[in-house]
Amino acid sequence: VNLLLLHSTELGSEGYVSLRGPRARHLVNVLKVAPEQVIRVGIIDGPQGTARVLRCSDGEVELACRLGGRPAVTPPVDLLLALPRPKVLQRLWAQFAALGVGQVILTNAAKVERHYFDTHVLDPAVYEPLLIEGLQQARDTRMPRVSVHRQFRILVEDELDRLAPQTRRIVAHPQADIPLASALRATTNGRVLLAIGPEGGWNAFELELLASRGFRAASMGDRTLRTDTACVALLAITHETLRAGSGLP
Amino acid sequence: VNLLLLHSTELGSEGYVSLRGPRARHLVNVLKVAPEQVIRVGIIDGPQGTARVLRCSDGEVELACRLGGRPAVTPPVDLLLALPRPKVLQRLWAQFAALGVGQVILTNAAKVERHYFDTHVLDPAVYEPLLIEGLQQARDTRMPRVSVHRQFRILVEDELDRLAPQTRRIVAHPQADIPLASALRATTNGRVLLAIGPEGGWNAFELELLASRGFRAASMGDRTLRTDTACVALLAITHETLRAGSGLP
Repeated sequence: VNLLLLHSTELGSEGYVSLRGPRARHLVNVLKVAPEQVIRVGIIDGPQGTARVLRCSDGEVELACRLGGRPAVTPPVDLLLALPRPKVLQRLWAQFAALGVGQVILTNAAKVERHYFDTHVLDPAVYEPLLIEGLQQARDTRMPRVSVHRQFRILVEDELDRLAPQTRRIVAHPQADIPLASALRATTNGRVLLAIGPEGGWNAFELELLASRGFRAASMGDRTLRTDTACVALLAITHETLRAGSGLP
Repeated sequence: VNLLLLHSTELGSEGYVSLRGPRARHLVNVLKVAPEQVIRVGIIDGPQGTARVLRCSDGEVELACRLGGRPAVTPPVDLLLALPRPKVLQRLWAQFAALGVGQVILTNAAKVERHYFDTHVLDPAVYEPLLIEGLQQARDTRMPRVSVHRQFRILVEDELDRLAPQTRRIVAHPQADIPLASALRATTNGRVLLAIGPEGGWNAFELELLASRGFRAASMGDRTLRTDTACVALLAITHETLRAGSGLP
């Protein structure tokens, strides 16, 4: 890991932390830490800093943390994602957190199979460790928020304005004429809410409802991609377009 | 599949094709084709067209193909990729073909482990079906070329100009100041050769050698990504930047 994430509740007085279990084993067996070594740490949804290894023995690692680095900033992109197949979603959690997503709003759609909602991959006990894995990879501390919605229409009509207020809304659609990067540059500033459909696409009703709520259609070209590839590609393009347009050279 | 790919050698007189094995089973069991149905077909490295199902029985599917659609165009991006772990490379083949890559130049680097070269994932018998899977997903017929190079310096100094002549060369480097999209827009037209390092990054010697051969460093930001996520993200950004800069609205 590039950053060891801790829950704020794990911090004792004066930054003392005692770890057991997988993280302690990873520190000892993979990173091979030794006393006095300094590693990068972060508090979930909090600041980053460093930790000095005090002791590692008997499967326990003791750390003295100094925090106060850059505070967690919410990534400027949210996803409205038609619930993918469980196997695909499982692969995506860590990549979402690594690429940077403020929230993942998972929704039903006509071409989403009902049994996708029964998967253990929607259980926070399953996805939170995967999100943490991605955050640790990318050196971020901000946990993406996750919500699951079984009724597309109610979500889009009644809940979206509260969940993702004042966002520039884009729906990824292979038949759209406008490249995603151009569509993003044509909007005013603010967070982006990116809608990504199911493997077979949104249907006409869904596209109309999204359009009526301010979603502009944009595409990545005429190549049809698997959902997992498409999600990574769309997120990467969105981040890069926002970054390249943010005044950097 | 969104497009059924055939080898030109499979085409009989007047476009007749008889399929057995996995493709025949996929047509019958997954796509549930029936006689007279018309499906989309393509010839590897050749044109696309349609095929009428003549007969399907006893594990055999007979097709009458009409070709002559758009000819295969080589995607405008080539990759110079430090050989990833076999498990990661296996996941990447289909995604490379789906996103669109002219060629994949796999190379050794200081932080590439030697045993990565011994993997069956570098065997054309293993990766060609995965490339075809990606092409069929994205409806493309152009097979990416693949070459494997065990000596980075000889590759970059002596072979690269022949393998990828007159390309705009970019090396992805997390510490670079210039966003990838900006670096691409700052170059003249032409194919892009994108260098992506190993999990631990290129070393100083490698970066200098790449710079001396015309590679400009560019980054996707300060988030460290897994190689598979990084490859998909970099390819997507490159394609989108070329497309958005190509005169489309």
